[in-house]
Amino acid sequence: MKNYLLHDEWKIIEEGFNPEYNEISESCFSIGNGRFGQRANFEEQYSGKSLQGSYVAGVYYPDKTRVGWWKIGYPEYFAKVLNAPNWIGIDVQVDGEVLDLATAKVLSFRRELDMRRGVLIRNFQVKMVSGKELEVSSTRFCSMANTEVGAIRYEVKPLNFSGNIQFTPFVDADVVNQDANWDEKFWVVVAKQAKRRSAYITAETKKTAFQVCTGMKFSVSRNGEKIKEEIVPTLEEKFISLSTTVACKKGDRVVLHKYAGIISSRYYDKSQLMSRCMEVVNEAYDSGFKNLLKAHEQVWSDKWKEADIVIEGDVAAQQGIRFNIFQLYQTYTGDDPRLNIGPKGFTGEKYGGSTYWDTEAYCLPFYLATAEQNVARNLLVYRYRHLPKAIENAEKLGFTGGAALYPMVTMNGEECHNEWEITFEEIHRNGAIAYAIFDYIRYTGDWDYLPEYGLDVLIGIARFWAQRVHWSEPKQKFVMHGVTGPNEYENNINNNWYTNYIAAWCMKYTVEAMDHVKSTDADRWAELVAKLNFDERETVAWMNIVDNMYYPEDEEKGIFLQQEGFLDKEIRTVDTLKPEERPLNQNWSWDRILRSCFIKQADVLQGLYFFEDQFDEDTHRRNFEFYEPLTVHESSLSACVHAILASRLGMHEKAYEMYLRTARLDLDDYNNDTEDGLHITSMAGTWMALVEGFGGMRAEDDMLAFDPHLPEKWNSYNFHIRWRNHFLHILVGKDGAALKNNADQPLKVKLRGEIVEVPAQGEVKF
Amino acid sequence: MKNYLLHDEWKIIEEGFNPEYNEISESCFSIGNGRFGQRANFEEQYSGKSLQGSYVAGVYYPDKTRVGWWKIGYPEYFAKVLNAPNWIGIDVQVDGEVLDLATAKVLSFRRELDMRRGVLIRNFQVKMVSGKELEVSSTRFCSMANTEVGAIRYEVKPLNFSGNIQFTPFVDADVVNQDANWDEKFWVVVAKQAKRRSAYITAETKKTAFQVCTGMKFSVSRNGEKIKEEIVPTLEEKFISLSTTVACKKGDRVVLHKYAGIISSRYYDKSQLMSRCMEVVNEAYDSGFKNLLKAHEQVWSDKWKEADIVIEGDVAAQQGIRFNIFQLYQTYTGDDPRLNIGPKGFTGEKYGGSTYWDTEAYCLPFYLATAEQNVARNLLVYRYRHLPKAIENAEKLGFTGGAALYPMVTMNGEECHNEWEITFEEIHRNGAIAYAIFDYIRYTGDWDYLPEYGLDVLIGIARFWAQRVHWSEPKQKFVMHGVTGPNEYENNINNNWYTNYIAAWCMKYTVEAMDHVKSTDADRWAELVAKLNFDERETVAWMNIVDNMYYPEDEEKGIFLQQEGFLDKEIRTVDTLKPEERPLNQNWSWDRILRSCFIKQADVLQGLYFFEDQFDEDTHRRNFEFYEPLTVHESSLSACVHAILASRLGMHEKAYEMYLRTARLDLDDYNNDTEDGLHITSMAGTWMALVEGFGGMRAEDDMLAFDPHLPEKWNSYNFHIRWRNHFLHILVGKDGAALKNNADQPLKVKLRGEIVEVPAQGEVKF
Repeated sequence: MKNYLLHDEWKIIEEGFNPEYNEISESCFSIGNGRFGQRANFEEQYSGKSLQGSYVAGVYYPDKTRVGWWKIGYPEYFAKVLNAPNWIGIDVQVDGEVLDLATAKVLSFRRELDMRRGVLIRNFQVKMVSGKELEVSSTRFCSMANTEVGAIRYEVKPLNFSGNIQFTPFVDADVVNQDANWDEKFWVVVAKQAKRRSAYITAETKKTAFQVCTGMKFSVSRNGEKIKEEIVPTLEEKFISLSTTVACKKGDRVVLHKYAGIISSRYYDKSQLMSRCMEVVNEAYDSGFKNLLKAHEQVWSDKWKEADIVIEGDVAAQQGIRFNIFQLYQTYTGDDPRLNIGPKGFTGEKYGGSTYWDTEAYCLPFYLATAEQNVARNLLVYRYRHLPKAIENAEKLGFTGGAALYPMVTMNGEECHNEWEITFEEIHRNGAIAYAIFDYIRYTGDWDYLPEYGLDVLIGIARFWAQRVHWSEPKQKFVMHGVTGPNEYENNINNNWYTNYIAAWCMKYTVEAMDHVKSTDADRWAELVAKLNFDERETVAWMNIVDNMYYPEDEEKGIFLQQEGFLDKEIRTVDTLKPEERPLNQNWSWDRILRSCFIKQADVLQGLYFFEDQFDEDTHRRNFEFYEPLTVHESSLSACVHAILASRLGMHEKAYEMYLRTARLDLDDYNNDTEDGLHITSMAGTWMALVEGFGGMRAEDDMLAFDPHLPEKWNSYNFHIRWRNHFLHILVGKDGAALKNNADQPLKVKLRGEIVEVPAQGEVKF
Repeated sequence: MKNYLLHDEWKIIEEGFNPEYNEISESCFSIGNGRFGQRANFEEQYSGKSLQGSYVAGVYYPDKTRVGWWKIGYPEYFAKVLNAPNWIGIDVQVDGEVLDLATAKVLSFRRELDMRRGVLIRNFQVKMVSGKELEVSSTRFCSMANTEVGAIRYEVKPLNFSGNIQFTPFVDADVVNQDANWDEKFWVVVAKQAKRRSAYITAETKKTAFQVCTGMKFSVSRNGEKIKEEIVPTLEEKFISLSTTVACKKGDRVVLHKYAGIISSRYYDKSQLMSRCMEVVNEAYDSGFKNLLKAHEQVWSDKWKEADIVIEGDVAAQQGIRFNIFQLYQTYTGDDPRLNIGPKGFTGEKYGGSTYWDTEAYCLPFYLATAEQNVARNLLVYRYRHLPKAIENAEKLGFTGGAALYPMVTMNGEECHNEWEITFEEIHRNGAIAYAIFDYIRYTGDWDYLPEYGLDVLIGIARFWAQRVHWSEPKQKFVMHGVTGPNEYENNINNNWYTNYIAAWCMKYTVEAMDHVKSTDADRWAELVAKLNFDERETVAWMNIVDNMYYPEDEEKGIFLQQEGFLDKEIRTVDTLKPEERPLNQNWSWDRILRSCFIKQADVLQGLYFFEDQFDEDTHRRNFEFYEPLTVHESSLSACVHAILASRLGMHEKAYEMYLRTARLDLDDYNNDTEDGLHITSMAGTWMALVEGFGGMRAEDDMLAFDPHLPEKWNSYNFHIRWRNHFLHILVGKDGAALKNNADQPLKVKLRGEIVEVPAQGEVKF
């Protein structure tokens, strides 16, 4: 855990330079706009520790799998989001001496991410080896108003000398992924062009043949006056720079504005990429930095009006939740069903930028409640589009008859992961994808989703489960062997309670969904029966499994067993571990982790969260009290579920501890891995921890319910919720809660268990 | 399964060219001499499918590990035996046209491995694209008399033309491993020299800095007369060739003799390598091909006198057993305790040429009974030398206090394997290493091995097991979680019967061994206590575990359970599998294999084999009858154990089936993988299947016991056995068995359960 970033309600601040944490800062100060994203790398050269990262949504590369010992069924390729051509670079030389914070003496340094405005600001003063002192200020943003534009204002002021400052803004397609499996480069340059003050490179990814045109245009001013620069272009195979030298006097302020365009073939015909990029860059240049920034800030301002959560009396918590919301909306804006939410978003290479079950299990509720319905729907349609690949994926593993196994990790629907215990066994992901359909309909009431898209997916998933279980003679029950549950610190286990439960639930829900479509849209049902070659006997088989599934439990303790035989382990609580053993996955060998009772991430508790209303409070409590002390939360997706359950059980201190852990996971680097990128998907879990945990929000019986609690340390908190055609504002303070209905229709809600009608534009205290 | 090699008692024969099986043939026709080995690659160029392979004993490279997802405890390097510089190459051109069996039309082709003489012979006639027809005969051997020498006789005869034939013998250090993890080359050339008719290259391995000097000298004759050749040398960075052109008339016989020296820095100072190589090569050249061959054949002749097994009435079985014995002695001659037996010997790259538990569990009995005592002892000392590394290896996994975990795969004692389910969990290997000490002493009576080397190793191993088990509250027993048993088609299972059993046995045997040393050599014991920091309370803890170990069984079926919960699986027998599903590991995804009941290799049955006398015959029978039908024998180490058990149980047909499977595993390519190399270590299992299975040989109560059975198809078989100071000959025929004692002392043996004294130089029929 680290604690070097300053607490502030709206800003992330690094005061003083921490080169040892630079890669962590590069992650935390990342900016993006749902179309492209950028780690907080420096514009000028930096020879210290750094992970260079520019990412363009949906532009990936199928990197050849690296594996020690091949097993049948492994995917050939691991699709990863590429480090895309660099658009931010501005090299600086002072009388021939390179500006580099790794070699200069840093006199002062401040990095600031202004989340309200969506702007990254950096100020520093340095003394170079020559003794020359400089002050530099840079401001950078990825425009939310025009998602093809990035802009930089870069100001240099000589403090103790006069001399020549050379600026060399560039675009560079000669970039690598640090995590390339075979140290290959993934980009080929297909076109480039340099004009007087602008430069364009179109690069194409190998194999996938995505193209991205990266362009820039710049201007320089001195003390507010534009300079007629002499510009020297340098063209290399994958690189163009434009150098200009400005004679400065001590105290002069030289400002370079760099406008970049990032245009991808996912949205334009390849033949038009460069001309479109020129258009975009020229428009940006012409409208100027201030106007671009203003438009950008306006979008954020609107976003915050809808999605902000205000916490009074706890700056760390306030900063945490805003950071989470900010990063989520930088990553995914929901207007393109081909896109999804990578666990690290646009902030690092790890996990390849691909889609995991995180989206359905953790992100969906956030987008359901803070964005238009279409955003969540697009997340679901993404999986519908991948259904044929999910069926292929199941076939590769020997399943038949249209059974679908969604991949653990994917970019285009194909499985990318290549650890057998995950790829082949962490199959509960299939359950989350079905659950998301249920969750979406429960929240939105959009039953039409079922005949249109949902039922195909559900049937594929139910078919998979029906083949994945088998009959145990000794138990006289259906069992499921060889799985990895959400707790990945157990592999190849039998009868994981969560997986068995969600498998049975999927089959049951699929039958319900079928009944709904049969009764409301018989034609569509007939169409589906033909298309899916559906046989009614399948339903009978599913219900037989549902009725005879084995669930491991311990009657004496009154708990569900994470898996069969769990109590055979040596049961120790987490507080018996030495600090130097944590995190376990960085200190213990894998067999020791597997043999131990320690839990990476909520497993039984994840099931209780999903299916809360199917278990009584005592069951919740007994399981929580048993499992929570065994959980190390080394998955970013764990604490949020524990926070919600603790809230429900009135264990407010635990809930608050868990909330802080998820809210400030990256800012405080709890798991010692923020340098790889931010845990974007778990950020939605933070939102859930607050809204569903402290706020006690549930969607049930076509109504929203609230049962809020105010953490002791806080004075108040409030948040907004979209619910069908309503926009609600929930305020929770020391003297109670209030709900404002900002719609023109009244709304029935359940407040602390009682159904209440809130008048149009009205408010109810509770 | 393939069937293209001809059956013959002493030879392996390929009649007609099978380019699609060429890599299989390259494996099967491999030759070696315990110091270096050579796949049956062609001397002349070949552009078809081929795995080039020359290997020098003990010369390995620590190739950087390739792994998808790193886990704590994984080794950084995988040591692998290198493909060493090529000494066999002789390019041939006919009037400028390259001789290449992949492009020429092959008119006739015969490849023959004469096992009696240890010689590889190849004859072929081809029609080249130009229409020229040639006959070629080559003879090659790796001298067993001078283990630094290889020699080739290469004869060419123009059949339908006169013209110029150019021969280009070469040495080439520019070789690669096909299985190089990162496509790197492993050799650097440090010296080279070309003389008129000889050439030398000294190459050094990267990282490990082993040096090998590979030299050659050649002469050419036409129709029996030496030619005064003009020789043109070509020197490249890692390659030297010497070309000479011979004018031939139709029907001429041109013979090239090539003499090679392979000298490694494992046996000489690096400064002397090249001069030693020159010496060796010149001596070989001077003594000439015939004399070298004669000396070589003499060694084989002596070897066969001691180790041959004769089977009358079954050519396939006869060929199989000789092939196995031949390959074993080509691989390991036992005079250097730094060497060991790789699963593929010198016949391929797979498994890296490293040492596995195969040596202790399968090879030791063969060398114990067919070679001088020192050979088996050297195999044990090899592990003693690695004890410090085994302790380090255990420490990496969190074990303490001198606990030793021997590696799954190793070259120098360090673990090389990097699959967690094997590396960290297939720990039963530790048991086999202890068992080998027991087995060696049981056979040889060499109790002095314990104080000198054995006890250190046993204590390290016992300490490991004591930490690896834990107490189960529900079971009130010690349990062992998270292991992979010999049946690698189950991973991360709990309470593998075999592993639990051998773990407890190790602790018990260690205590017995300690008692022996205490009572016979108190000084040495005191020394060991001090050196190992041994605490008597350890013994108490071990015996507590021994007394309270959990063994999974099914009382109703009267069987031991391979692991806890085994019967929860869907139990199907192997005969319900479709042929196209076999072998499972090439057709089923890993999860399906793991979930199935199918067994790769004897597991419970391996334990019954090791600890035979601790279980009654009914127990053997019930377990065999349950497990045999579930076993797919996709490990080469499986069938031999089943053959022995079936023999013991009087299931002679099954025993014979299993024997053929192991004896002809590679010749008939049962598992579709002979192209990777031969299954050298399982060949010792074939020997066991015959001697311990059909012959019923056991070492017990300081006596040898025999209880032979003659397979129905055979007329007779006979084999030789070394036993302490005796050399025995056992003959089994249709009208009974006989045992000859070829020593000058009488010998007590147990024949069909009765103790009999065989007079010196006498014979007993039974």
